[in-house]
Amino acid sequence: MVETFKALGDKLSNWGRWGVDDQKGTLNLITAEMVRAASGSIRSGKVFELSLPLGHDGPQRGGHGRFNPQHSMSVLPGEFATPDGLVVTDDVLILPLQCATQWDSLAHVGYDDKFYNDVTASESVTARFGASRNSIDAVLPGAVGRGVLLDIARLRGVEWIRAQDDPIGPEELERAEAEQGVRVGAGDILLVRTGWRRKAIVEGWSKEWITVNPGLGLDCAEWLCEREVSVLAADNWGVEVQPSRTDGAYLPLHCVMLRDVGMMFGEMFDLEDLAADCLDDGQWDFFFSAPPLRVVGAVGSPVAPIAVK
Amino acid sequence: MVETFKALGDKLSNWGRWGVDDQKGTLNLITAEMVRAASGSIRSGKVFELSLPLGHDGPQRGGHGRFNPQHSMSVLPGEFATPDGLVVTDDVLILPLQCATQWDSLAHVGYDDKFYNDVTASESVTARFGASRNSIDAVLPGAVGRGVLLDIARLRGVEWIRAQDDPIGPEELERAEAEQGVRVGAGDILLVRTGWRRKAIVEGWSKEWITVNPGLGLDCAEWLCEREVSVLAADNWGVEVQPSRTDGAYLPLHCVMLRDVGMMFGEMFDLEDLAADCLDDGQWDFFFSAPPLRVVGAVGSPVAPIAVK
Amino acid sequence: MVETFKALGDKLSNWGRWGVDDQKGTLNLITAEMVRAASGSIRSGKVFELSLPLGHDGPQRGGHGRFNPQHSMSVLPGEFATPDGLVVTDDVLILPLQCATQWDSLAHVGYDDKFYNDVTASESVTARFGASRNSIDAVLPGAVGRGVLLDIARLRGVEWIRAQDDPIGPEELERAEAEQGVRVGAGDILLVRTGWRRKAIVEGWSKEWITVNPGLGLDCAEWLCEREVSVLAADNWGVEVQPSRTDGAYLPLHCVMLRDVGMMFGEMFDLEDLAADCLDDGQWDFFFSAPPLRVVGAVGSPVAPIAVK
Amino acid sequence: MVETFKALGDKLSNWGRWGVDDQKGTLNLITAEMVRAASGSIRSGKVFELSLPLGHDGPQRGGHGRFNPQHSMSVLPGEFATPDGLVVTDDVLILPLQCATQWDSLAHVGYDDKFYNDVTASESVTARFGASRNSIDAVLPGAVGRGVLLDIARLRGVEWIRAQDDPIGPEELERAEAEQGVRVGAGDILLVRTGWRRKAIVEGWSKEWITVNPGLGLDCAEWLCEREVSVLAADNWGVEVQPSRTDGAYLPLHCVMLRDVGMMFGEMFDLEDLAADCLDDGQWDFFFSAPPLRVVGAVGSPVAPIAVK
Repeated sequence: MVETFKALGDKLSNWGRWGVDDQKGTLNLITAEMVRAASGSIRSGKVFELSLPLGHDGPQRGGHGRFNPQHSMSVLPGEFATPDGLVVTDDVLILPLQCATQWDSLAHVGYDDKFYNDVTASESVTARFGASRNSIDAVLPGAVGRGVLLDIARLRGVEWIRAQDDPIGPEELERAEAEQGVRVGAGDILLVRTGWRRKAIVEGWSKEWITVNPGLGLDCAEWLCEREVSVLAADNWGVEVQPSRTDGAYLPLHCVMLRDVGMMFGEMFDLEDLAADCLDDGQWDFFFSAPPLRVVGAVGSPVAPIAVK
Repeated sequence: MVETFKALGDKLSNWGRWGVDDQKGTLNLITAEMVRAASGSIRSGKVFELSLPLGHDGPQRGGHGRFNPQHSMSVLPGEFATPDGLVVTDDVLILPLQCATQWDSLAHVGYDDKFYNDVTASESVTARFGASRNSIDAVLPGAVGRGVLLDIARLRGVEWIRAQDDPIGPEELERAEAEQGVRVGAGDILLVRTGWRRKAIVEGWSKEWITVNPGLGLDCAEWLCEREVSVLAADNWGVEVQPSRTDGAYLPLHCVMLRDVGMMFGEMFDLEDLAADCLDDGQWDFFFSAPPLRVVGAVGSPVAPIAVK
Repeated sequence: MVETFKALGDKLSNWGRWGVDDQKGTLNLITAEMVRAASGSIRSGKVFELSLPLGHDGPQRGGHGRFNPQHSMSVLPGEFATPDGLVVTDDVLILPLQCATQWDSLAHVGYDDKFYNDVTASESVTARFGASRNSIDAVLPGAVGRGVLLDIARLRGVEWIRAQDDPIGPEELERAEAEQGVRVGAGDILLVRTGWRRKAIVEGWSKEWITVNPGLGLDCAEWLCEREVSVLAADNWGVEVQPSRTDGAYLPLHCVMLRDVGMMFGEMFDLEDLAADCLDDGQWDFFFSAPPLRVVGAVGSPVAPIAVK
Repeated sequence: MVETFKALGDKLSNWGRWGVDDQKGTLNLITAEMVRAASGSIRSGKVFELSLPLGHDGPQRGGHGRFNPQHSMSVLPGEFATPDGLVVTDDVLILPLQCATQWDSLAHVGYDDKFYNDVTASESVTARFGASRNSIDAVLPGAVGRGVLLDIARLRGVEWIRAQDDPIGPEELERAEAEQGVRVGAGDILLVRTGWRRKAIVEGWSKEWITVNPGLGLDCAEWLCEREVSVLAADNWGVEVQPSRTDGAYLPLHCVMLRDVGMMFGEMFDLEDLAADCLDDGQWDFFFSAPPLRVVGAVGSPVAPIAVK
């Protein structure tokens, strides 16, 4: 029920915890000491980049504000010619900031006209200036620290979890920890693999892919807070299971985590190669870095996340 | 003279060094072992993000393909309303890929109709598909490893070097090394501070700022190769001194380094806070990560570089 | 004073005159019979097109939402090649709808949270859907009928009126009528030439050009209503004199005419050739047509107006 | 066969007819006297506007350079607030120039690297500047004159012609003339209705709609020249039947008419209301005006065509 998630949000609220002007939310959980310690997860020096291609062959289906990026060349070879034979090219991109691999800022989802830290939604975001509070450029450098991958698709023994399957709950996250021999701790950046990216590789993009997805249930909210996770990302567009299993609530986990807890979500991360490597060497943690672009007033940002093992 | 830089390019050429199909150039110099070793530069866990704001108050002056980014909201609070009180926002960005802090791909600059590794420029880049070779998405994860900052403005004792001042030469880079107690080595990511970003902070953006800049002279090319630098970035739009001091050559260092050597340039990095901190603690190296966006066929990419000390 | 224009707006209000759902305002004044009669103004068959070029060399100076159009090619010759030798090209345009020659819709300017015909501004325009009332696509085919040109710059004997010169008042419009031997009547489309376009031809675009302009004073409002003008256009960006001569009011003539009277304004029309021809043959009226693009929910539209004599 | 259309193009070529520098092609056929005479087709003063909505619910299916327009608000009510209560809004549009109702310029289709009037395609169009010859802004004011509608769907007694049905040939155009009591003459703007727009109204946009269409066969080329038609437009995206019935030729009628004859095509015109009215009053000609936007270097343009009866 709607009351359920709002009560939960109230219970888990971090409003004021890092000051009334705070815009970083649970990113504050990452201390310099944690970043330093995370460098210890770099053991072999392998680097994994976790983004989807930004091109017109992407997951979006069109419609207002949700299209695949449009790339165009503004200068081609030979068009800016100087006597020394110089060749220069240049290009322009049009992209919905959340069209592919991306961060939700804390100004992306809220409820009852509030975003994180008591910011009034309707007053803080305008067509003219974007978000004046909780925008993505307020969190730079963003999530840099220790990352942990939990591979739930593998735990269930499936290529990918289906949208209609049981949502991922806290006990399943803990079973994955036990199975993988890793523990999610304070300040950690948690990556959850549902296999939904794998589905797109096998079947191609589809209306189903971008309309529903497997993911975390609302009952993960408390667990994420107890473990003091700093940010959460997944290999699908919604992170939380879609459609929601909470009656009358469309994005209840977003609502609680982004608005009340102050935790950013990362979406459409490509975890395939990283997961394969982790399975191979049994190391499921890594140094992680995924700064958003410093887009002034933006409510989301494309990102090229990296995991270094 | 034009012949000068072409002869130099021929001498320093890395074409074929990493295979005839290679598109990564000197990024190949960074080994996994170097990445692992670079983790040792993380001592305190401080994170610096090095990008300029992406907004309409930026360095560009307009004109074809070179404008400041345009951000627009596609959904504002209250516009996607559901009975549970959900608030959702969404936004779109239009940006020239090289309008602010960015990477030049190896398909951005060449000469005599060739890009790095014998790629024919006029055949490899089209309006329809962008760059089919040497595009920015071919280098992912890009520059991740040990970064070193050389602060030449500080070495000269000026707030910023003027465009008409002497170009930065190899001996000056070595004096900076000696002064700072750091040495640029194989696979290192070299950041050079000219103070040009500082000028913009003090004076605001101007036509001068984006038209000329202080920077490296052509005689740095050989030194960069000897030291086996992997990529080079600076705090201005051109990296190399503009206008060029090589008669008849517009971008001779770009030409040699991008086309012949295969070294990407990073431009308009904001090195102010990082330089201040390095001066403070005397540590001029750090773990560096700056993956470009995975824009299919793009010749450049905005980037949010981070340095972790 | 502010009260002045609001009282005037109240006096001249056409709200409800053409029904509570009307979105066309004074365009309703143009009857089919008037269109038929306007065909009589076609005497020689000469056609004049009145738009500025849409390119990056335009009047805008950059900044949020007010930049010159950006045109890019998405397919160039040779890129979509078929065995029969076919050549195809394609292109994309990014344009602020009011960046050059354009119509203000009745959802573009209002005051006290109201647009024409008692539409609540804050409720009727959203980032998601644009204007749900009074949008430009609601007025199609727009202004088609008899046009009349009054050349005030010529009347004053100047190349162009300066922004600081006296605003154009109703008596001056009547002097122009007398001088030119033409009379503005019911349903007419009135074009006023201030010479401001001429200034740009002579001096180039400038910050001054797009910041201030000569134009009509607030005292023209009543006259425009008495004459039953259908729409008003001028050769500058503001139609009315800028800065306003009404204390505390920024765009008082817009406020009264668009919001209360329901009269669309056309801006940045190029009247140079038409004016020269009218002077030459002494015919100052013509068949006029300037349909906006049918952009769903737009508050303005670029236009290519034609006058046929 | 491919040879067929090239031989036909050679036979019908207008290259040089209006000078070696001509860029207007058969628009030159419209004389001022014809425009004057066309005013006689205005009998009742009814105005019809013939464009499709420009919104995200349009015929395009996405992909590079072929998406539906994206409209965004850059200023919403309340965001540019002054003490006098002023409300201002502003907006921006991103549109492929040929995404909906539009003109093909003579730089849009050619073959064997030539466009109209011996212009070398590969040299005349660049990413940087667009088309330097035959661009859409070179034809202003474009097609203004007498329009004639031939309703072939009605002639065949169908709601719409199917793509697999027989192409429209010259004898059928003449049967329509006879049936409708109208004759296409020198300088006339010819509009052909296939009912394809009707199909979209009934069935909604579909992949089929934008992939194939009924239309004119290649054998109409000679007839269009004999009649000295100035421009040709239809109610579908291709004007000519798609797929082509000429072996190995993709767009043979475009090739001959645009490149050799120099006749612009208008596409996706909405002829429904106009056709109904013409059937009703038996008058199939009208005053027609459809100036393209003056987009510098563009190869096409959106348009809001009007027919006045």
